[in-house]
Amino acid sequence: MRTLTGLQPSGVLHIGNYFGAMEPAVRLQEEGEAFYFIADYHAMTSNHNADELRNNVRGIAVDFLACGLDPERAVFFCQSAVPEVNELAWILSTVCPMSLLEKCHSYKDKIANGITPNHALFAYPALMAADILLYDSNRVPVGKDQKQHLEVTRDLVVKLNETYGEGTVVLPEPIIRENTALVIGLDGRKMSKSYHNTLPIFGDEKPLKKLVMKIVTDSTPVEEPKQVEGSTILALYQLFASESDYATMVADHQSGGFGYGDFKKRLAEAYWDYFAPMRERRAEILADPGYVDAVLKSGAERAREEASRVLGRVRKAVGLV
Amino acid sequence: MRTLTGLQPSGVLHIGNYFGAMEPAVRLQEEGEAFYFIADYHAMTSNHNADELRNNVRGIAVDFLACGLDPERAVFFCQSAVPEVNELAWILSTVCPMSLLEKCHSYKDKIANGITPNHALFAYPALMAADILLYDSNRVPVGKDQKQHLEVTRDLVVKLNETYGEGTVVLPEPIIRENTALVIGLDGRKMSKSYHNTLPIFGDEKPLKKLVMKIVTDSTPVEEPKQVEGSTILALYQLFASESDYATMVADHQSGGFGYGDFKKRLAEAYWDYFAPMRERRAEILADPGYVDAVLKSGAERAREEASRVLGRVRKAVGLV
Repeated sequence: MRTLTGLQPSGVLHIGNYFGAMEPAVRLQEEGEAFYFIADYHAMTSNHNADELRNNVRGIAVDFLACGLDPERAVFFCQSAVPEVNELAWILSTVCPMSLLEKCHSYKDKIANGITPNHALFAYPALMAADILLYDSNRVPVGKDQKQHLEVTRDLVVKLNETYGEGTVVLPEPIIRENTALVIGLDGRKMSKSYHNTLPIFGDEKPLKKLVMKIVTDSTPVEEPKQVEGSTILALYQLFASESDYATMVADHQSGGFGYGDFKKRLAEAYWDYFAPMRERRAEILADPGYVDAVLKSGAERAREEASRVLGRVRKAVGLV
Repeated sequence: MRTLTGLQPSGVLHIGNYFGAMEPAVRLQEEGEAFYFIADYHAMTSNHNADELRNNVRGIAVDFLACGLDPERAVFFCQSAVPEVNELAWILSTVCPMSLLEKCHSYKDKIANGITPNHALFAYPALMAADILLYDSNRVPVGKDQKQHLEVTRDLVVKLNETYGEGTVVLPEPIIRENTALVIGLDGRKMSKSYHNTLPIFGDEKPLKKLVMKIVTDSTPVEEPKQVEGSTILALYQLFASESDYATMVADHQSGGFGYGDFKKRLAEAYWDYFAPMRERRAEILADPGYVDAVLKSGAERAREEASRVLGRVRKAVGLV
């Protein structure tokens, strides 16, 4: 049972990334073989700044390790350290009808917004299929937004196996993350970089706590009871607080006599404390620059070994010498 | 000065392939560095039969060597022996507007003929650009049908260098083969596999000579003069005969008194004799099966060396670690 997850190196990581992708990935590494990669080829579909790309890749590697990725359990590597994935993407493209890619929402949304997409953005689901199939992955945890792309992968598996024989590639199963998909942002909408409403995982204490103070609330006076349903503060607090602390804050909302400022302070404290062990681990990692390189190098070696086994099988099946 | 040529392994080679691609390639290997590859990835856009693909690759390697490709001068390799080309194709795709590929006639023709193309067929010009740029090629001899694809390559060079800095990739120049592009087939149309009007380069004497006898002619009686202009026999004869033999046949057309059967016999003889040294060389090659493998292996090594140098430069420029 092998689980595969790709992480886009798209800048400073926020708690939406943490609870949506990193925390589940850290949990899954206990349950079987895990292959986790930093999707730098995919990032190139929208990022054409070489320095930024390099820094983002480095940053996500450090942060993911700090958040509990265990390189003894998981194979952790950079997508572009296994360039073989591009060859498999080509092979899949030869059995991929244009219509399969044309109907992908990632592409259609761009068109609808008047953006002229580049070819890589269009071909993205074929490369994603190759990411998954190159390692004979069995399980792929995906958010709802990636569900369609995994369907493309499964369609391509059927087509390739029909064309070249059963067993050429392995059919993966999606694990849809229903519950964890939504982390609320500071303004009550989904937390997302593009809404500028995020709480970073890492940063200095003062500015991070200050961000919490920016949460949008209504103007209920201190002495009156506050709305529990739909409270952004409570939704975020639940992620970090113990059950009893959370129950206390709910009760304090209902009783009245506590101001939003008070609740925000408790949230800021819980948020800051929650990531304390990760911050500590992060400082250790940053103090030893060779560590990350060594982890990614050894991960890439293990990944390439597996890729070369799978690709050898596929190349033989399709008639490449 | 480096020249690059790709050859599609699409089955039995005919004299249209010979005069259009192989003979010029053999001439160009004398004039500077030559990189010649068998385009098996491209063949996969339309050929999904693994055994056929393998046989075609083998066949074209043998035939090209028999026709004078000198592995001491030219670097001769199989496209898929340098899978790095797919990585460069991805990188180019990130700066390739969809519109650039959508307007390519190879794709538009398929659409117009009601064929639903696969994604590889659509992406073909991006892979072709990578084929060229991966070796810092300076010159690319192309038939008129490939002129547009080379324009796509040049557009992508400009875009990549604009995005990541001058010198990231090298701008290639096309050499348009105006004169040699058209070899007439047995029915008077362009010689092409899809018209079933070809003369193979290699084969057994009897069936090959029999093919010449099938050339379509008019019903002018033996004693009368025959049309010189537009004569398929003369057009083909000119490829194989000495100038004086050709002049004799022209005169014999004009004087009358010679039948088409006579002319065809002379053509069949000249055609058969022309390829005698290649046939001999081919028999030698076939008698030593290890030879072709060794040539392709050493070619692939030299090509990969160059590819790795160029790709290292490109990866650095775009921010891949």
